Amino acid sequence: MARSREHFRSILARATCTPAAPIFDPLSARIADMLGWEVCKLSGSVGKFANLAVPDSVPLSNMSDLVDVCWRINRVADVCLIADADEGGGNALNVMRTVQELEAAGVSAIEIEDNLVPRGFGKATSRHSLMVSKEEQVGKLRAAVAARRDPSTVIVARTSALAELPLDEAQDRIRAYSQTGAEAIMLPGVPGGRADIDAAHQATHLPLCVLGLPPDALNDPAFLAANGVSIRFLGQPTYAMAVKAIYDSMKHLKDGGAPEELRDRQAPPELLRAVDRTEELMRWEREYVIE
Amino acid sequence: MARSREHFRSILARATCTPAAPIFDPLSARIADMLGWEVCKLSGSVGKFANLAVPDSVPLSNMSDLVDVCWRINRVADVCLIADADEGGGNALNVMRTVQELEAAGVSAIEIEDNLVPRGFGKATSRHSLMVSKEEQVGKLRAAVAARRDPSTVIVARTSALAELPLDEAQDRIRAYSQTGAEAIMLPGVPGGRADIDAAHQATHLPLCVLGLPPDALNDPAFLAANGVSIRFLGQPTYAMAVKAIYDSMKHLKDGGAPEELRDRQAPPELLRAVDRTEELMRWEREYVIE
Amino acid sequence: MARSREHFRSILARATCTPAAPIFDPLSARIADMLGWEVCKLSGSVGKFANLAVPDSVPLSNMSDLVDVCWRINRVADVCLIADADEGGGNALNVMRTVQELEAAGVSAIEIEDNLVPRGFGKATSRHSLMVSKEEQVGKLRAAVAARRDPSTVIVARTSALAELPLDEAQDRIRAYSQTGAEAIMLPGVPGGRADIDAAHQATHLPLCVLGLPPDALNDPAFLAANGVSIRFLGQPTYAMAVKAIYDSMKHLKDGGAPEELRDRQAPPELLRAVDRTEELMRWEREYVIE
Amino acid sequence: MARSREHFRSILARATCTPAAPIFDPLSARIADMLGWEVCKLSGSVGKFANLAVPDSVPLSNMSDLVDVCWRINRVADVCLIADADEGGGNALNVMRTVQELEAAGVSAIEIEDNLVPRGFGKATSRHSLMVSKEEQVGKLRAAVAARRDPSTVIVARTSALAELPLDEAQDRIRAYSQTGAEAIMLPGVPGGRADIDAAHQATHLPLCVLGLPPDALNDPAFLAANGVSIRFLGQPTYAMAVKAIYDSMKHLKDGGAPEELRDRQAPPELLRAVDRTEELMRWEREYVIE
Repeated sequence: MARSREHFRSILARATCTPAAPIFDPLSARIADMLGWEVCKLSGSVGKFANLAVPDSVPLSNMSDLVDVCWRINRVADVCLIADADEGGGNALNVMRTVQELEAAGVSAIEIEDNLVPRGFGKATSRHSLMVSKEEQVGKLRAAVAARRDPSTVIVARTSALAELPLDEAQDRIRAYSQTGAEAIMLPGVPGGRADIDAAHQATHLPLCVLGLPPDALNDPAFLAANGVSIRFLGQPTYAMAVKAIYDSMKHLKDGGAPEELRDRQAPPELLRAVDRTEELMRWEREYVIE
Repeated sequence: MARSREHFRSILARATCTPAAPIFDPLSARIADMLGWEVCKLSGSVGKFANLAVPDSVPLSNMSDLVDVCWRINRVADVCLIADADEGGGNALNVMRTVQELEAAGVSAIEIEDNLVPRGFGKATSRHSLMVSKEEQVGKLRAAVAARRDPSTVIVARTSALAELPLDEAQDRIRAYSQTGAEAIMLPGVPGGRADIDAAHQATHLPLCVLGLPPDALNDPAFLAANGVSIRFLGQPTYAMAVKAIYDSMKHLKDGGAPEELRDRQAPPELLRAVDRTEELMRWEREYVIE
Repeated sequence: MARSREHFRSILARATCTPAAPIFDPLSARIADMLGWEVCKLSGSVGKFANLAVPDSVPLSNMSDLVDVCWRINRVADVCLIADADEGGGNALNVMRTVQELEAAGVSAIEIEDNLVPRGFGKATSRHSLMVSKEEQVGKLRAAVAARRDPSTVIVARTSALAELPLDEAQDRIRAYSQTGAEAIMLPGVPGGRADIDAAHQATHLPLCVLGLPPDALNDPAFLAANGVSIRFLGQPTYAMAVKAIYDSMKHLKDGGAPEELRDRQAPPELLRAVDRTEELMRWEREYVIE
Repeated sequence: MARSREHFRSILARATCTPAAPIFDPLSARIADMLGWEVCKLSGSVGKFANLAVPDSVPLSNMSDLVDVCWRINRVADVCLIADADEGGGNALNVMRTVQELEAAGVSAIEIEDNLVPRGFGKATSRHSLMVSKEEQVGKLRAAVAARRDPSTVIVARTSALAELPLDEAQDRIRAYSQTGAEAIMLPGVPGGRADIDAAHQATHLPLCVLGLPPDALNDPAFLAANGVSIRFLGQPTYAMAVKAIYDSMKHLKDGGAPEELRDRQAPPELLRAVDRTEELMRWEREYVIE
């Protein structure tokens, strides 16, 4: 884990922007690892959907659920894992427990957001619109930083401010969060595109992690480098494709279709063997098993 | 769980053959449940691949790994779950602990096979070819039956005998296993097709669970009913499709492809919402949340 | 689990009052089981102290933490387990998930209390003094009852009303909770002694579970029977004795004391062997292991 | 975890011998941490007894059980944890998975022993007497070293050789194990006392971890320093005292004794509050919670 965390720090320090694999469970993390992804992002949404069958918009899951998934991911994938810890599970005390448990589960970076999860469906215009005060969030981020047992763990200040607040207030928050010991700023949405990135960058010396930047900005390395955009997230196509594959398969079989008719949509045997590490383990066996 | 177990018993008692959904993790179990599958089968192979990234052919996972997956499945899916417990984790004592823990994890039925898992790659012609003696297996099955805390849990005697032994010995085993308190016979392969089923049925009064029956037999309800074929398994197309979907998605993104280009292969929003039970939970909220 | 739940129902139906063992982890549950205790109570307080080293007075633990402890207890002890689920983890939706997960963990009975856990230290006069409205609690209890997958699971309506509200309001709550499908009333404190029990019993036909009744009442079987006092809890001497034993031992050793000097305070070998079931397992081995 | 591992390395490098707290679960680890113990040792025996109620002499538990306990310990105690991984869960391949999972659970050091666990009761003269060949064990230790993701994790070669083999063979094994990348030698018993330590030290440059050294040797710092005795284990008085306390309490209550009569054997309130970190958390709250 220490090694992953140091590696993650080196990625944050790069002049170029690194994409993060949109994983949701151990299997998707294992496949990301196989394909050479350096960074994996476990979003709160898909983590809840896939592992617990609960929505993200109301607080039906908790921090221990997240910790359990991270721990199972870390067992099978040797990657830098960014965990989306929502609002940290409550107030600053809860944040402290959350950070210590996620660290124990081996994550490299932990996102703490400045919102509250609405208590019920339709209680807020969006999952992110109920914001806590800047002061409270600064306390929570300072608590997160102080709670770490491993100083190489990265606390990421995640903020909906660009979407929810006037620009100057948003910048003010980013500025304040940057003084807490947090070491990256995560922007879960940039409605203003390049202008938002620019505004955020002006307010902080920290690297930015971004979701939802328009393609023209993403394809402009000079812009990204000039604004410290260090990590980008990619939405959740992987989860949605897995669901469709599982659903289609189960529907076909339920309707009496033959398993054989699904052959074209299945992974070939060599891919399946790569997932379960058969060849790698056979090499280990030849090297180490003496009987 | 008690309710699921009673329901599973009613399924075993049917004159018709019921297919089992080939699940491998909580997400696939949730989708099977949504689609109305009554019975889910967690095979040892895909359970290990998906959750641990280890192969099935050598004993790199253990009973606690299986128990953990069953427990997480049971949390999100209200189905009758058949767990493939391989050889039960060791000798009859291990079988007893395995049965009690799988029961505590809420499974309806537990398969115990009469083979040993080869200790290393290439140490046996197949995963199933190293058989324990009939006497030892009878002891293990009796132990499994005695270890249950809930008498409605079904112990399934799984045997490779039809593939590995002369027919009379195979029948002799099936006959002996049927006297142990086990309540179904599972045949993981029927190389002899209808003849194998017929031979097994002659040797036992118990319902049969079958994998690998040729289509002509599967499509002959009279044959299935006459031979007590009660549950059929369907191979693992679901897992292989999920792997391909995840892999293709991750590969596309890793190669710089845009997430948008994957749109056609993604589940639509309404399907995603069904998986995470948004509508169901909104109904519950309207019914029960008073603030 | 079904068997335990049916057994718990028979205990509730008795004319006599049954004490519940004050367990806090798998080891204490195993020892209670050895000693023939029929019912075990996992209080929220000691469950949090022993397993998580967090206090009970602020919400630093969550429902998944509780579920994990119950599940590990259920693996090693074949008893009727009453789980104290605090306020159920949030609103009625949270209660539903809590009930389903605790059921999957094998508990027999689930207590849901009509208070809120204070968000911080000193934010309330006691752990139990922030009460939700009667209407909200009725919704939560109805949700708990509806969420069960196993109709034999008992929902216990726990109320601080006798300590926190005027008597008539307290009775009104007990009356209302008794119409929700909950099947027992738990009184975590009876400041008024016999008078409180009498008042509660007048308000409900349900059996009472009681903590803190004065000795003269506890030793009056006619009184208990006449008032439907079905289960009594005993405080937490067991946890406090375990902590002292562990602490004294660790302190002695840390100060350089010899292990041998602790001999008188250690369990004898035959007791240790009973805890780990050596004799029982040797009998099982003789009966079932054939090699 | 990285910090703990580095700290453990500094302890191994000391000229003096450091005792290890004999913990068995999260509660005992928490209390050891409170008392300032730097190193905690989770022995296989008490880990199985306390968490699973199974004996140590037959393989009824598995590596995942151990990993789970270590993980739960690591959540509540910030100490250097030495995990006794028995024979590593099987052959060298199993050792590799074991090491990776224990690392993910945050342990500092992992003991791998050169014996087999007997398959049944009475199948060997002792838990440790069935030894694997030197060559096989060298392969297993090399595998353990190679499997680490964090190079600061310490692999400890544990050997029963001094008790089971002629002295020259025992020395030969220790010599061979010392060339594998393992970084300490653990001697679970030294029947020959000082002579055994001397013999072991002659065969290796690695620090020794020792159980069962006679008091005169333990109280001779010059001897310990001269022979590289770095860590000493202390038997299991803590577990045996906890069991007696829990048993006595439960027995007293079962026999109808009043809880109050147990007062003298209970931890005082301030000790209980220290265990659950009330004061520490109140300080955190004052520092970080802003509302």
